[in-house]
Amino acid sequence: MNGLMMDVPATITSLMQFAENVHPNTEIVSVTADNPRHRYTFADAFRRTRKLANALQALGVARGERVGTLAWNDYRHFELYYAVSCAGMVCHTINPRLFAEQIEYIVNHAEDRVLFLDPMFIPLLEPLQSKLPGVKHYVVLTDEQHMPATELPGAISYEALIEPHSDSYDWPALEETAACALCYTSGTTGHPKGVLYNHRSTVLHTYASCLPDALGISRSDVILPIVPMFHVNAWGVPYGAVMAGAKLVFPGPKMGDGETLAALINEERVNLSAGVPTVWLALLNYLVESGKRVDSLKRIVVGGAACPLSIMEDFEEKFGVYTHAAWGMTEMSPVGTFNSRLDRQALGEAEYAKLRVKAGRPIYGVEIKIVDDDNRPLPWDGVAFGALKVRGPWICSEYFKLESSAAHDQDGWFDTGDVATIDADGNMQITDRSKDVIKSGGEWISSIDLENTAVAHPAVAEAAVIGVYHPKWTERPLLLVVKKADAEVSREELLAWFDGKVASWWVPNDVVFVDSLPHTATGKLSKKDIRQQMADYRFAE
Amino acid sequence: MNGLMMDVPATITSLMQFAENVHPNTEIVSVTADNPRHRYTFADAFRRTRKLANALQALGVARGERVGTLAWNDYRHFELYYAVSCAGMVCHTINPRLFAEQIEYIVNHAEDRVLFLDPMFIPLLEPLQSKLPGVKHYVVLTDEQHMPATELPGAISYEALIEPHSDSYDWPALEETAACALCYTSGTTGHPKGVLYNHRSTVLHTYASCLPDALGISRSDVILPIVPMFHVNAWGVPYGAVMAGAKLVFPGPKMGDGETLAALINEERVNLSAGVPTVWLALLNYLVESGKRVDSLKRIVVGGAACPLSIMEDFEEKFGVYTHAAWGMTEMSPVGTFNSRLDRQALGEAEYAKLRVKAGRPIYGVEIKIVDDDNRPLPWDGVAFGALKVRGPWICSEYFKLESSAAHDQDGWFDTGDVATIDADGNMQITDRSKDVIKSGGEWISSIDLENTAVAHPAVAEAAVIGVYHPKWTERPLLLVVKKADAEVSREELLAWFDGKVASWWVPNDVVFVDSLPHTATGKLSKKDIRQQMADYRFAE
Repeated sequence: MNGLMMDVPATITSLMQFAENVHPNTEIVSVTADNPRHRYTFADAFRRTRKLANALQALGVARGERVGTLAWNDYRHFELYYAVSCAGMVCHTINPRLFAEQIEYIVNHAEDRVLFLDPMFIPLLEPLQSKLPGVKHYVVLTDEQHMPATELPGAISYEALIEPHSDSYDWPALEETAACALCYTSGTTGHPKGVLYNHRSTVLHTYASCLPDALGISRSDVILPIVPMFHVNAWGVPYGAVMAGAKLVFPGPKMGDGETLAALINEERVNLSAGVPTVWLALLNYLVESGKRVDSLKRIVVGGAACPLSIMEDFEEKFGVYTHAAWGMTEMSPVGTFNSRLDRQALGEAEYAKLRVKAGRPIYGVEIKIVDDDNRPLPWDGVAFGALKVRGPWICSEYFKLESSAAHDQDGWFDTGDVATIDADGNMQITDRSKDVIKSGGEWISSIDLENTAVAHPAVAEAAVIGVYHPKWTERPLLLVVKKADAEVSREELLAWFDGKVASWWVPNDVVFVDSLPHTATGKLSKKDIRQQMADYRFAE
Repeated sequence: MNGLMMDVPATITSLMQFAENVHPNTEIVSVTADNPRHRYTFADAFRRTRKLANALQALGVARGERVGTLAWNDYRHFELYYAVSCAGMVCHTINPRLFAEQIEYIVNHAEDRVLFLDPMFIPLLEPLQSKLPGVKHYVVLTDEQHMPATELPGAISYEALIEPHSDSYDWPALEETAACALCYTSGTTGHPKGVLYNHRSTVLHTYASCLPDALGISRSDVILPIVPMFHVNAWGVPYGAVMAGAKLVFPGPKMGDGETLAALINEERVNLSAGVPTVWLALLNYLVESGKRVDSLKRIVVGGAACPLSIMEDFEEKFGVYTHAAWGMTEMSPVGTFNSRLDRQALGEAEYAKLRVKAGRPIYGVEIKIVDDDNRPLPWDGVAFGALKVRGPWICSEYFKLESSAAHDQDGWFDTGDVATIDADGNMQITDRSKDVIKSGGEWISSIDLENTAVAHPAVAEAAVIGVYHPKWTERPLLLVVKKADAEVSREELLAWFDGKVASWWVPNDVVFVDSLPHTATGKLSKKDIRQQMADYRFAE
């Protein structure tokens, strides 16, 4: 027997219309290439969103077709999020930091009909455009006055595109299962793979990520999403702020610039922000060097990579800013787990430090489990580690135009490719990527644990650990180290550093000092490249 | 084109299983008839929930069938919520304060197969049971030791019922549209009408009501739901606490007892509670008289009726407790609007007092509008008032076994039967019930505004305003007043009290002093009975 409740679909359109009614005067502040401080309200934004929807229709983009963006975090990108998705099209956000060949592949694979790009990406697109036959229109995210000369065929400025159109538009009634957005993962092997979100997954994810023990977004918040809007929808912040009516502050192209970030935080009274560890390190360094403060800022969310404890401690001790670790994936919309605020006094210093670097508990809607090689569930004891699998309404069921994926179980779970522990309280901690885990004599060694131990050494700037063939143990850990400028440390000192910090059989067999380590387009260590560089390495013995 | 996200239904089962995994050690503390302080964990609760599901199956209750409860807020009622709904049956909570004839009607209309009842309701049910032919089993919510003698046929204690059954149970895979719970509205006219919730509506409502600008429930909270679990699922608290992992404190039959409530709050460190105004008045009176404090308590949520400003002020000034007004209906699961924490300093005293007694903003998922007699939308200016209509996934589409309802528009909106204003910030304020609004010379006068003005007079304990026939204006307001003990005030003094507080043409035409005013089973003023009592009243003129 069915309940007798209204059949109202969960759509981004309803989210937008709710905010337009209930939060019309909430501000959105943006840094753009053509304006250091653009400022308007939700009411203004959604009025222009309707003009844009009319313009997209006039360009001939049909329901379900993809509209690509190569853009920073600002108000025009925000308008694209809502106009494209609510008109029933698919907003395909592209990472402009990818290699040109990857962008070419992605645009063609997604079959983007229109590309919206920031002026600074014109030089990136001009040499590519002949290889992008499906793209019918190029729209540059600026106004007529700032429109650069370009060879992109038929290029038009965003303001010229929307200006002639009416600001009234009848949003179509969409099924909640309709696709709304597309984001490609920049995997380390093979072609990027597309994750196709739908309206339902976006709305449910927004509810869960706004809960008090996750981002905890309220109407009194001022949020600076530093995580790019091309990086899994800026972790959902552009939706969460709209649900809650929180003021948005968009840093535009200045997201890596500590000085701009500090100025934005202080001028706009930002109290909550989200970004990857490198951004926080840049801000921290700027603040320490300049002697500036960010007193309005209360909480930052860090994801995309494990956050070193030292960054968390520095923000808390020096600036009164609490750091939340969170974990997710492009395939997960992205939030999977969140480390909610911990009670330092109740936990004591050691437990507090240990718990806060974990990835936190799943948010409701995400089921997690760890399994062994035979897919048998492992205990939640904080010690056992195994392949981390997830399930839920905002987790991808398959990749766009790829019928099957090895990452999906027959029982519907998605294999994250991570290896993790889960403790009795549900706190998850990534111990490795599945393909980076080192299998020594049939037992697993966490490369990440070893890397974290190595970087805690005062002379180490960056460290990587890979498994290398060993005749007796099959694999043994090899440590690669980039020393800090002017710091000195020997192989023997480094290996001794591990004594008592990890199990004795985990201690790396050797250390190689290098000038730098290779990274992926999203700033992570590229273990694939490291393994390639070290292909000829053999343990002495 | 559909997105490629997992098709995972939003069910109460998934909520329960999430909490069992992630919050196993969260506590539930209960006062029951047979134990002044029962204490166990979520893990214990859901283990017993599986035993209960097996027992229900053994009783022969089929999918979709109704299981009735006549019970206070405690752990066994909590187990019933989850066992019945997750087994695919319908948990029908019955208000034991209704008249016997209404209970008889409701049990028969719902076709309850089993009734679970607290021991104190045996005397209520015994004389009724012969008129309840559909009820096959009576289960008394106690253990063998405390089981009273009863004539209820085949009565068994709850503990004896579940004891023999296994604590393992395969929860069925349910559609999210499946019915999960049933609650009858005790309308002032006609038979009670049943609202049939489904899993989806419950999960979405739980997400929205846990958001920071609504109940804002987190894992660090300790919640005392004083609002009964037979009163629209205790406003969703038994679901919200499970989603967040918040400790639950159930007051059992002691919900109106200020002393017990204060003791529970202090012993269990309750920081958040929810209930109707009369409960808060009882607690406030107890605290003031006893000199006791409730220092752990930070926030209370008040709904079910408008909360007098004086209660809010007393709690804040004397006890440091913030009061949130909220508004909803049985037909709305129930939360529709919530008055989130206001910034007293930023608003200033007058604006703060004015805003905080409003019902607040809609939570995302609820659309609201006010319309005139021709169903045309009225402006959100805080002045225009009209019929309040609502729409959303946790609002009833029709009543149980009633094919059509005058309360539903052709365009799918539900007419709340309230008259309201909405301001530019989305803050809603109920000005009247549609049928209580006084139509004077074609213009509307709010009976509630007049009542609020009257009760602000120091000599007035309670006030009611009804419209009475007037030869010239069709209707004019008549004020009925219950004076405070030992207080004195004249008709003329009271009418003069309105000068400058309301428009001059709103001032009541007359005052009638009465010893008491009639109330409904849920404690609201019964305007129907008042109108009946005053049927022969005529304005002098």
